[in-house]
Amino acid sequence: MIISMKLHATRAEIDAVVERIQEFGYKVHSIEGEERVVIGVVGLGDVTPCLESLEAMPQVDKAVRISAPYKFVSREFRSTKSQIVANGVEIGGDTFVTMAGPCSVESERQIIDTAQFVARHGAQFLRGGAFKPRTSPYDFQGLEEAGLKLLRKAKDETGLGIITEVMSDRDVDLIAEYADILQIGARNMQNFALLKTLGRANRPVMLKRGLSSTIKELLMSAEYIVAHGNPNVILCERGIRTFETETRNTCDITAVAVLNELSHLPVVLDPSHATGRRSLVPALSRAGVAIGADGLIVEVHPCPEKAMSDGAQSLSFPQFAGMMDDLGPYINLWKESRVAALATA
Amino acid sequence: MIISMKLHATRAEIDAVVERIQEFGYKVHSIEGEERVVIGVVGLGDVTPCLESLEAMPQVDKAVRISAPYKFVSREFRSTKSQIVANGVEIGGDTFVTMAGPCSVESERQIIDTAQFVARHGAQFLRGGAFKPRTSPYDFQGLEEAGLKLLRKAKDETGLGIITEVMSDRDVDLIAEYADILQIGARNMQNFALLKTLGRANRPVMLKRGLSSTIKELLMSAEYIVAHGNPNVILCERGIRTFETETRNTCDITAVAVLNELSHLPVVLDPSHATGRRSLVPALSRAGVAIGADGLIVEVHPCPEKAMSDGAQSLSFPQFAGMMDDLGPYINLWKESRVAALATA
Amino acid sequence: MIISMKLHATRAEIDAVVERIQEFGYKVHSIEGEERVVIGVVGLGDVTPCLESLEAMPQVDKAVRISAPYKFVSREFRSTKSQIVANGVEIGGDTFVTMAGPCSVESERQIIDTAQFVARHGAQFLRGGAFKPRTSPYDFQGLEEAGLKLLRKAKDETGLGIITEVMSDRDVDLIAEYADILQIGARNMQNFALLKTLGRANRPVMLKRGLSSTIKELLMSAEYIVAHGNPNVILCERGIRTFETETRNTCDITAVAVLNELSHLPVVLDPSHATGRRSLVPALSRAGVAIGADGLIVEVHPCPEKAMSDGAQSLSFPQFAGMMDDLGPYINLWKESRVAALATA
Amino acid sequence: MIISMKLHATRAEIDAVVERIQEFGYKVHSIEGEERVVIGVVGLGDVTPCLESLEAMPQVDKAVRISAPYKFVSREFRSTKSQIVANGVEIGGDTFVTMAGPCSVESERQIIDTAQFVARHGAQFLRGGAFKPRTSPYDFQGLEEAGLKLLRKAKDETGLGIITEVMSDRDVDLIAEYADILQIGARNMQNFALLKTLGRANRPVMLKRGLSSTIKELLMSAEYIVAHGNPNVILCERGIRTFETETRNTCDITAVAVLNELSHLPVVLDPSHATGRRSLVPALSRAGVAIGADGLIVEVHPCPEKAMSDGAQSLSFPQFAGMMDDLGPYINLWKESRVAALATA
Repeated sequence: MIISMKLHATRAEIDAVVERIQEFGYKVHSIEGEERVVIGVVGLGDVTPCLESLEAMPQVDKAVRISAPYKFVSREFRSTKSQIVANGVEIGGDTFVTMAGPCSVESERQIIDTAQFVARHGAQFLRGGAFKPRTSPYDFQGLEEAGLKLLRKAKDETGLGIITEVMSDRDVDLIAEYADILQIGARNMQNFALLKTLGRANRPVMLKRGLSSTIKELLMSAEYIVAHGNPNVILCERGIRTFETETRNTCDITAVAVLNELSHLPVVLDPSHATGRRSLVPALSRAGVAIGADGLIVEVHPCPEKAMSDGAQSLSFPQFAGMMDDLGPYINLWKESRVAALATA
Repeated sequence: MIISMKLHATRAEIDAVVERIQEFGYKVHSIEGEERVVIGVVGLGDVTPCLESLEAMPQVDKAVRISAPYKFVSREFRSTKSQIVANGVEIGGDTFVTMAGPCSVESERQIIDTAQFVARHGAQFLRGGAFKPRTSPYDFQGLEEAGLKLLRKAKDETGLGIITEVMSDRDVDLIAEYADILQIGARNMQNFALLKTLGRANRPVMLKRGLSSTIKELLMSAEYIVAHGNPNVILCERGIRTFETETRNTCDITAVAVLNELSHLPVVLDPSHATGRRSLVPALSRAGVAIGADGLIVEVHPCPEKAMSDGAQSLSFPQFAGMMDDLGPYINLWKESRVAALATA
Repeated sequence: MIISMKLHATRAEIDAVVERIQEFGYKVHSIEGEERVVIGVVGLGDVTPCLESLEAMPQVDKAVRISAPYKFVSREFRSTKSQIVANGVEIGGDTFVTMAGPCSVESERQIIDTAQFVARHGAQFLRGGAFKPRTSPYDFQGLEEAGLKLLRKAKDETGLGIITEVMSDRDVDLIAEYADILQIGARNMQNFALLKTLGRANRPVMLKRGLSSTIKELLMSAEYIVAHGNPNVILCERGIRTFETETRNTCDITAVAVLNELSHLPVVLDPSHATGRRSLVPALSRAGVAIGADGLIVEVHPCPEKAMSDGAQSLSFPQFAGMMDDLGPYINLWKESRVAALATA
Repeated sequence: MIISMKLHATRAEIDAVVERIQEFGYKVHSIEGEERVVIGVVGLGDVTPCLESLEAMPQVDKAVRISAPYKFVSREFRSTKSQIVANGVEIGGDTFVTMAGPCSVESERQIIDTAQFVARHGAQFLRGGAFKPRTSPYDFQGLEEAGLKLLRKAKDETGLGIITEVMSDRDVDLIAEYADILQIGARNMQNFALLKTLGRANRPVMLKRGLSSTIKELLMSAEYIVAHGNPNVILCERGIRTFETETRNTCDITAVAVLNELSHLPVVLDPSHATGRRSLVPALSRAGVAIGADGLIVEVHPCPEKAMSDGAQSLSFPQFAGMMDDLGPYINLWKESRVAALATA
């Protein structure tokens, strides 16, 4: 059950609602927006009496029953798509968003050159890892704070928003100073301590689907962040692990359409990790636009064969430029249908 | 190694080449086309001396080394896409092909009505199973030859080509009398006895990827058919089996792009089995067009809720019509880029 | 619903039961044993009235409701384990059964030597493929009937029973002349045309689980064979396909315990295909005995490094002898608990 | 390359070795044991000259080349099994170790009763979660420090060692005050920030394999902990995620044998999470003993049907007692072969 308070309800009015809920024996989770407070209620059994009682309270705008195990992130809670704003760009609205850049921040030259190039060719965000999750303890682990500073420099020069990965709850505050979007990697999708901390962060979060996580588990992890106070979550399909070895992962592209049915949160596709091979990235990106993703996150490197990580899946500059040209007419079709959908929403 | 003979080489000229190859200790597989004979050579070790010797023979057009384990179906063997003609329609050329119809042929009324409707809305082929592979021995097993006769009737009334499934090598000849394309289901992708028999069939074959078959295994199974004499194979991605349960299978859409890199054979996408849910079929179909599939095979039923099989994934008539309208502009983009590719090939 | 007739019921008595069932609108499947006829009834809705009516008929021994989708193979149908006899050996009883031999029959010397060795070290059955399912059309496809003749020779010299693979419904009769058990490979587990033909064969069948088949699907395929008339089915776990590449397949050993709960059919473990590495075979075999499999099927070759197929997973003669010694005390524990279970059954 | 220093080498002697390595351009990782320092060297190219130069230094005991990507945890580094001591019990030696207890610590009564019961029936460690990773933010998240205090009370009353889960690097120090072994859950196997912190912890760590992690990735994560200073790592197979739904996970039991080949670290099997069904736990436990695991971790609850988590897979007290009796003769066989192996090591 989700209770939406009237605009600008007072603290006393909210407390009265919480008390009423507790009298019925239910547990309360609340999200306080700037204008409106929303209260999530979790409980077993028939909630009808409680629901009716709450609807009768003047400070309550509406009370809705939600059957999915994820509450705040479900379409039942919000029937129209959420728009999430980062660095002035709206994700989930009528702009198709491109996030591009290297796997790792390696040097000032590398990141600035890349930022300038991708900005010129239509990207709105620069991606680049400063803290890197690596399978081997002996592999390059990222430039850490020095890398964050280079990302800021790139932002200053290009105006691009910054998206970069957070690996530990200890780093959330530091990275939030530099980044416009906090990225959570596949291996941390169920790092619940981190998810709870992100609930208190003042930045949007892009949550990548785990290697073998179900769509439902992805939504439950998003619910963790939202239930702990941060409604600005972007979902990301980046390929799952299967028996197929021709590609690095198997892109579950249908998940984009499923997530659009089940949730109001924006969904971004990562064709670079999904394939692991740069030659496949443009074709999969077209499919991502066509199926209705809200954006792409793509690896681009000035010299992929010398990249310190993920070289095989990074596009060179000319390849990125070519792909963006190729995507143009597909993005136009996307925009037409998105504008139409928003108009009727 | 693949040896392509000059046009209209004589039997004696061919035999001389085969003898030469055998002198080098290699094994010979040949495909005899109407105009040109192609000889596949399989052997270990350095083939250079044999290759040079063959190229020196006047009746040999070209001799090429092929490193992939699949030979005839590889891009190394043929660098441009194959076009396969069935019922006068070219698959793999510049026409995007739609195959539509019910999972099973159930009655005359059902199959004729469906054929007329899908023909009016842009389909070139009618699908419908007369021999049905069912997990349970107690489920409906298909109308068998009576079903084939209904398919012919539907073809007579609409002009649509017929694609229907073959489950046993015993049935190949019978079904080939009625069908324009022989469909091999996912569970029979490695039924090698059946594949060998299809090599002798005079109909194109659509080979569906097995539930947990790799892309390479799909190509090896296609190679079986081609190496046994039938070059007209169409590949089909229909979803693989993973841990995800939100959809019936997981569509490995990237496989379409991988197959286009590795093979010259046409590739069709089956969004119905890939998703198992009709609401997801239109979005996935858009993605299939955008990624460069050569066609779609889609389940359509006059009354999905009463279908004897696969009702949940079958589109109703209005849904199919809506989807075909929605796909129009994507198919136009597809056609533009296909025409351009064929022009430069 | 399953109706078991009294011993030696007459044809007229049986027909009367079938008629009664059909009056209730249900579909009938019957298995005719030598002494007793069993009738399977499939139907929707409440079967109580039909059940009560049948139980009142004097020629009916018992009528039981079965909720699982597989009927004849379920524990509901038969609460005690089935024993299946082949070449005088009981599988599923109180003898732990070992089937051993090469992947492929390659030569007289190879198969006779192997048969003699494995017989001396405790095997009851000789395995060896004459018809080989191979991923590549260019790989060795087996000696076919010549291979079957060598298997018979090995049987004549050692007294071992023969188990060998059937790949096509066309070959069932031929192979049944030579083999004591017909083996169905993983890739044919859902070759329904083959399963139906096996239902009419007069030999026990060992059905291997498909690479990505669920336990329930394995039981449904066994049900095909039994429902078509052959109750002598042995199940085989041989590893499933997962993301792990350290082993050829992933042995789902728990499936042995699950199958023992759900079905009365014997279950054999194949540690050779499950691991793909000979060094792992003895340890996994111990686990197979301990978890309660009824037997093992193991690849053994006089010279594994020269085997025409599956060399990496074949045991040498000394390795097989060592493994059988190592298994001895585990098989003793197995026998104790099996004898105790049979006594209380 | 791994360099093992002589016993009680001085700081200056160690520094001289490090300098020599760096002159060759390699990167140094060192583990400082109480008695002996070990230096790991990571680098590309031919290491022979460096190796020979180091072996010539008097303070160096031995220098070995290691080809596996995991170094310290490999059998190349240490050819005999490691024994890890916790609460006076040696894991990886000649005692088969049983860890038993509830999924979550729920109350004093529950945890003390369980501890007393499992201690009486052969367990050496009490398991029980105080910090719980839960898919849903609305599920019971554990008693946290209050739970740890109850675990200590149970230890005081029974003498059992304590194993409990750590979910965040923030909690390592707190939990290390109460626990004898720090358990890392499947979802945190690649939480690299946590792994690094565990490298500085003064407690053994039990690292569970991730839901879709390969055996190699498990070893790489263990390598993180060891390379950061903590050599006391126990590996745990707890089932992987596959398409099969009959069990909660699919137990990759062969992984136990593979890990024993590749690594010297002890390996524990978790039959409770691997199956998700209590009826399967005893059979799988027998298989675990037979294949050569060093121990079991099993869920036991005084009243499984009222458990706050994992009730379906928890054994009741009588079931646990029965299982331990049943395992007795298998553990005896295990011990015989372990004692023999240690004698020849």
